[in-house]
Amino acid sequence: MSGVKPLKVGIAGLGTVGAGVVKLLDANADLIARRAGRPIVVSAVSARDRRRERGVDLGRFAWVDDATQLATRDDVDVVVELVGGADGPALTLARGSLLAHKPFVTANKAMLAHHGLLLAELAEAAQVPLKFEAAVAGGIPVIKGLREGAAANELSRVTGILNGTCNYILTRMEKEGLEFGDVLADAQRLGYAEADPSFDIDGIDAAHKLSILASLAFGTRPDFPAVEVQGIRDIRLADIRQAAALGFKIRLTGLAEVLGDSLVQRVHPTLVPVGHLLAAVEGPLNAVMAEGNFVGRLFFSGRGAGEGPTASAVVADLIDIARGENGPAFAMPAMALAGLKAAGPMARAGRYYIRLSVEDRPGVLADITAALRDAGVSIESLIQPASADSVALVVMLTHHVSEQAVQHAIATMESLPASLGAPLFMPILDADA
Amino acid sequence: MSGVKPLKVGIAGLGTVGAGVVKLLDANADLIARRAGRPIVVSAVSARDRRRERGVDLGRFAWVDDATQLATRDDVDVVVELVGGADGPALTLARGSLLAHKPFVTANKAMLAHHGLLLAELAEAAQVPLKFEAAVAGGIPVIKGLREGAAANELSRVTGILNGTCNYILTRMEKEGLEFGDVLADAQRLGYAEADPSFDIDGIDAAHKLSILASLAFGTRPDFPAVEVQGIRDIRLADIRQAAALGFKIRLTGLAEVLGDSLVQRVHPTLVPVGHLLAAVEGPLNAVMAEGNFVGRLFFSGRGAGEGPTASAVVADLIDIARGENGPAFAMPAMALAGLKAAGPMARAGRYYIRLSVEDRPGVLADITAALRDAGVSIESLIQPASADSVALVVMLTHHVSEQAVQHAIATMESLPASLGAPLFMPILDADA
Repeated sequence: MSGVKPLKVGIAGLGTVGAGVVKLLDANADLIARRAGRPIVVSAVSARDRRRERGVDLGRFAWVDDATQLATRDDVDVVVELVGGADGPALTLARGSLLAHKPFVTANKAMLAHHGLLLAELAEAAQVPLKFEAAVAGGIPVIKGLREGAAANELSRVTGILNGTCNYILTRMEKEGLEFGDVLADAQRLGYAEADPSFDIDGIDAAHKLSILASLAFGTRPDFPAVEVQGIRDIRLADIRQAAALGFKIRLTGLAEVLGDSLVQRVHPTLVPVGHLLAAVEGPLNAVMAEGNFVGRLFFSGRGAGEGPTASAVVADLIDIARGENGPAFAMPAMALAGLKAAGPMARAGRYYIRLSVEDRPGVLADITAALRDAGVSIESLIQPASADSVALVVMLTHHVSEQAVQHAIATMESLPASLGAPLFMPILDADA
Repeated sequence: MSGVKPLKVGIAGLGTVGAGVVKLLDANADLIARRAGRPIVVSAVSARDRRRERGVDLGRFAWVDDATQLATRDDVDVVVELVGGADGPALTLARGSLLAHKPFVTANKAMLAHHGLLLAELAEAAQVPLKFEAAVAGGIPVIKGLREGAAANELSRVTGILNGTCNYILTRMEKEGLEFGDVLADAQRLGYAEADPSFDIDGIDAAHKLSILASLAFGTRPDFPAVEVQGIRDIRLADIRQAAALGFKIRLTGLAEVLGDSLVQRVHPTLVPVGHLLAAVEGPLNAVMAEGNFVGRLFFSGRGAGEGPTASAVVADLIDIARGENGPAFAMPAMALAGLKAAGPMARAGRYYIRLSVEDRPGVLADITAALRDAGVSIESLIQPASADSVALVVMLTHHVSEQAVQHAIATMESLPASLGAPLFMPILDADA
C-alpha cells in the first residue's frame, strides 16, 4: 500500500461506537487497506471529555475541542459523526461537513429521520457521499441491501425488528416467564436498556429507523412524523403465553408498505407465526425483510447494536468512500424522491389479537361479543384463561377485518361497566407475509 | 433522464434468466433509471435459437449469431453472460469482453469456481468491473453483503444453504414423509430438478458457490478442487425422522472456515438444531451466514434461483456499473489473494450423527459399540428404531470427537458381517454456530 494516499478520518463522539471504530481500524488495518485499496486512518477526534478512559490510545490523533472544526481541517478527508441527537451539534457538524465538501458518515437515525432530505440535498449539491449504514439495524448491511442489492426491484413492503432492547425484553419475558417491568429493570441493570428507556420501549427508535428504510425502499421522502407508533409497555406475560398457545410469538415490528398512492408506516407489537423467520429472531438481534417485484422476499438479520456491529457498519461506509462510491444518499436524487400521503387506519385490514381485562362476573362475555357484533368484527376464537383473582382476561383472535372495526369494538368494550383498563390489540402477521 | 447516456447491455443467452433480465429492465425501467442515474437498455442479444418463444419482444434488439461478437460491438457497453458452462463459449466471451475493456456480468458459478482468478486478473488489467451477484444464492445480495457490507471484518466462517433443489427435496421429505427418490421424481416432473440432477443433488453446484464465497470472505484464491463434497442421495426418510426426534433438521450446507493457516471447504448434509435460523430455511430458499470479528453473525436469506430473483441480481450488478462502481472482483486485488492449503479431515472435530443398516440379530450392537470404543468415539445416544423387517437401523449421536475417529469407526462398522451397506454420517451444527 506504500505510495497510496490514506483516507483520513475525523471522528466526532468517542462513546462506545466511536471507540469501537478506532479499535476496528486498528485491529483490521491491513485487511481494510487491501479491501479499500488504500489505508483508512484516524487523524483527528473530538469528544466532550478528553480524559475519560476508553480503552484506546488517542494520543496519536489531533484532539479537537469543537467538533464542528472537523469539517474544515485539512487533515480530515471524511467526517464520522457519532455524537447523536436529531439537532444540535450533530446537525451543525453534518451541515458544516457537507458544505465543506467533505464526505459524511453517521450512525444518527434521529437526525436522518428528521433532517435526512435536507442532508441528502446538501450532499448532492456538494457531490460528496452521505452514508449511514450504522443508523439502521447496526451491523447488518441493510441500507446497502435495499439501496444496491435490491435496486432492480420495485419494493412493496419492508418489515423489520429494529430495536434490540425491545426484542431482548420480549424474548426474555417469553423464555423466562417474567413480567415486562422485571425484565426492564434487569436490562437496565445489565446495560441493555437506558436509564430512561422510553425512546426504545415506546418505539421511537424503531420508528426513526423505519422512516429511513421506507425512503430507501420506496423512493419516497423520509417522513418520520407520519409513522404510527405503539411500544411494548403494555405487553403482559399473559399476552405472550396466550400468543404462544395460539402458535405465535410477539415481536415489536416496523412495517412500511405502499397501498395504492399512500404509505403505511407503523411500529407496533405484532403476533408472528412460530416457524416464520422473524419468530427466530431472538434477544438483541435485529432483522429486516423486504418484498421486491422480481426478487421476492429478502431477509437479513444480525446484531442491531453494540460497539462491534455498529463500528463494522461505520467502517463499511468508510471503505465504500475510499473505493470511490458516491451515489445519492437515499438511492436516487433527492429531487426524484416522491412525497406519499400517509395511509390512515382505515386503509388497514387483517387478523388481530385483542386482549381485555374485565371483572370476572356473569354477562360480561355477552357484552363483549355484542360489541364485536355491532362493530362488524368476526371472531375466530375467544379464550378466557383461568384467573386467580376477580380480574378475568379475555383474549380474542379476529378473522380478516378492517382495523377501524377493531378500534370501534375496542372503544365500546372499554366503556363497558365491567372493563378494567384499556384493551390491547395487535396485528397478526400472515404466515406468508 | 433526458440528455443522460444510457448504459447499453449485450446479453448472451436467452434462457429463463436472460428473458427475465429483459422483462425486468422493461418492467422497472423508470425506477432503474432513477436509481442508476441513467437508463439501462438492452442493445444486442445472442442465443442459439432465434425463433424460440420467450415471452419478450426481441425485435427491438440487434441479433448476434456469434455471442463472442458482443465483446467488440460499439453498441454494447457491458456484456451479460447467461450461457453457462465452466469453459467453452462462456469463457471465450468472458475473456473477449474483458480484453476489449468491457465490464462483464455473469451468473456462471461453474466458470467462476474454475477460472475466477484468471478472470479477476483480466478485469483488473483492463480496469473494468467483473461482477457476479447472480452466481451465488440467486436474488440474495450475498456477494455484495460479504464484499462490501462486511468488508470491515475479518471473517472466520461462512455457512450456507446454497442449492435450492436440495433444500426443496429435503424439506418435502420432512414435511410429507416421502423418500428421496419419490420427491426427486416429482421435482423433476415439476421442473424443480433437472433431468440429470446429479449436479445439484451431488453437491457440485453448492461447491461451486461455496468456493466463490470463501474467496470473498477470506481474501483467498477461489479453490474449487479443494472443496470436499457429499450430496443428499443417501439421505433416507428414516434419517430425517430420527433427526427430528432428536431436535434437528437435515440441510445440505456449505461450510468454509479458516483453521489456523488452512482452509476448510465442505459441502455436506448436516444436522441443524430446530430453532436455528438455518432450520427455518425451507423449500427452494437459500441462506448464507457469515461470522465477522466485529459484526458477529450476519444472516441473509431469500430465493436462490429462478427467473425473477436471478434477473434481480444481474440487474443490481448493472446498476452498480452504471453508478461507476469498479472495485476488484474478489473484494481485493487478485495479487493480494492468499493461497491457503486445504484442511484435511484430521483438522475437523465436532458432534456427529451416524446411521447404519445391519441385520437384526443378537450381538450386532456389541460389535458396533466395540468399533466405536476402539476408534475412541464417545457416544451421546444410540437409538434403534423399530424395524418392520429383518433390517435394523442404528442411529448414534457422538459427543465432541475428531472426524477422523468417526471415519475409523465407520470403516470398522462397514466391515462387520452384519453390516448392510455403507454407513452414513453427518456433522451436527452447534446451536450457537
